[in-house]
Formats: sequence, C-alpha cells, structure tokens
Amino acid sequence: MNFCSHCGHPVTRRIPTGDNRPRYVCVECEAIHYQNPRIIAGCLPVHEDRVLLCRRSIQPRAGLWTLPAGFLENGETTAQGALRETREEANANVEIIDIYTMFSLPHISQVYMFFRARLLDLDFAAGEETEAVHLFREEEVPWDELAFPVITETLKHYFHDRQRNEFPVHSRDIVIERRPSTG
Amino acid sequence: MNFCSHCGHPVTRRIPTGDNRPRYVCVECEAIHYQNPRIIAGCLPVHEDRVLLCRRSIQPRAGLWTLPAGFLENGETTAQGALRETREEANANVEIIDIYTMFSLPHISQVYMFFRARLLDLDFAAGEETEAVHLFREEEVPWDELAFPVITETLKHYFHDRQRNEFPVHSRDIVIERRPSTG
Repeated sequence: MNFCSHCGHPVTRRIPTGDNRPRYVCVECEAIHYQNPRIIAGCLPVHEDRVLLCRRSIQPRAGLWTLPAGFLENGETTAQGALRETREEANANVEIIDIYTMFSLPHISQVYMFFRARLLDLDFAAGEETEAVHLFREEEVPWDELAFPVITETLKHYFHDRQRNEFPVHSRDIVIERRPSTG
Repeated sequence: MNFCSHCGHPVTRRIPTGDNRPRYVCVECEAIHYQNPRIIAGCLPVHEDRVLLCRRSIQPRAGLWTLPAGFLENGETTAQGALRETREEANANVEIIDIYTMFSLPHISQVYMFFRARLLDLDFAAGEETEAVHLFREEEVPWDELAFPVITETLKHYFHDRQRNEFPVHSRDIVIERRPSTG
C-alpha cells in the first residue's frame, strides 16, 4: 500500500493514537487503512461413501486435488460462500450439513472453514479453475496429490469420524514460522 | 474507495475479466482491489459458575455488556486474536478450551468466533475500551443490557450446554435484510 484509497495522497506506516500496532495512515486525511485476515470457505461434498474432489487447473498447485473452496465475499454468510465456490469450481449442487473443520494459517493471514455437504445430484462438472471433478472412495483418494494440508486433514478427519457417524468440529492452527532466506 | 492504493490513480468499479462481480479496479495499473469480510474473535471466560463480561465504554453500545472480542489482525490465529482481545479489554489471563460459537453477519460482512476459555486468575480489570469487568452467575447476567445478539446467543448456549457438560460448536447466520429507507 502506497497511497490513500480515500483521497489519493501518500500513506505512511505508523502506530495511530490509541492503537498498538503499525497501520497505513494517510499523511493528508489521516484515514487509517486496516488490513485483516481473509476467510476461505469451502465444502466437503459427500455422496454415499464417496467424497468429491476437484483437480486444480490454476496455480498454485495446478494439477493437484482439492475441495471446492475460495475467498468469502462481502455480503455472504460463510455457508453461502462455501455453496457458491462449490457451484463455481465443480458445478455441484449440494446442501450444507454443518460446519466441520477450521484452520488458522497466520503466516498467510487466512482462516479456512469447511462445511460437510450432501450432493443433491451427480450432475457435477469442472468449472473454470478446475480440470476434473471426481468422486473418491477412501481407498481411492490420491493422498500424495492433494493440493494443501488443510485438504488432507479435512479428509482424514472425515473418514475417521465416519466410522462412528459423529462429526465434531475440528479446529486447528497451522503455524509455519517465517525463517530468513538461506539463499 | 476512490484511488488505487498501489499507484494513486483513480479506481473505477467494474467486473474484471474472468470474475463475476464488480470490484474496484485501477484505471491506470489495473490492480484489482478485493474487499472481504472481517473476523471478530473473542472469548467466553469462565470461572467456576460465573462468566466474565465487560461493560463497553465506547460506541457502539456504550454502557452495555459484552464478551471481550475484536477484529482479528493479520498474522494471528483466531485463538491468538481472542486471547489478545481478552487481555486488552479485560486485562484477563485465560486459557482457551475450544471454539464454541460462530456467527455470520452478512449485512455488515463480519464473522464472529467465540472460544470457551478458563480464567487463570482473578486479576482482571477494565481496559481502555471498557468501563467495568464483572463475573456473573447465570441468574445475575444483565440480559436486557447485553450489547449484541451474538453475546446473548453465546451466553444462552453456554448456560444450556453447561447442564450436561457438553459444548458442541454452534454455528448460525444472523441475516438482516437491507430495506430501502422509509425516511
């Protein structure tokens, strides 16, 4: 951030009065520009004993498998965001069952939320950011080709919890220390 | 938003190529400025049969009682944000037990997350945005003087769930339709 989005003058980085951390503050109109973590909402779509995964056609992790998920938009509930992403990425019609997993990723200021969801039909198809959509039984899941740790953990929880048909919410922090580059 | 925070030129509002909703886009450098919901993280601090509430000294809802909570900051986990807000608003030392309630408030693009927490000592005291901090038994809670519906719901869930000592995660949307002003 270099300029004030309100008045167009340069911003500086300083701790505003009454605050305790540096913010971008306009040198002219003194508007404070807060920056906050973003939410990624998604679904774990289930049909009988199979789960729906999408193979990514875009970076990062193109070619690897993921659950349909993406940035929550202003004006949406977390469940609405998860449904929208499931339609956009997999053209899949689901109904939400309940919130299931949550992950804080502070090194990239993101919070993931996955909802268990029921596929309402099998008319799914790859969306624009997806090159394939497929239903997998547990033994068919491409564990070595999953795109992100939050996907692996959500699937592992699901297949474990399914054995006793109880699905408590799982919440975990994935903390990766930033280290100085060693070249 | 009037100006590009990257290059300082004016922004326009349009649907970028490959997107499906209007964004602020710079007329000069074409940077797309996304805006997303914010997370408010807080604690439900418990000591024996009492819960800790803070009386707000700032608007909105000054003078009303709330749980310690505030905007999650970049670089924090949701639990770290909840702990920080509990220290800032109530100078209270707690340990997190688990995530407990979540609320989507799409009309203001906010997502609330409250954690159950255990008070580690009774050395709490009002912080800068608080005029009083107090422990309340269920029958003492000032139900008519709570600051926000999410506070009322979290407390009601807690006193209900405490009867059988089971605390499942509660997730709910609080949807308030925007209506045209009737003057």
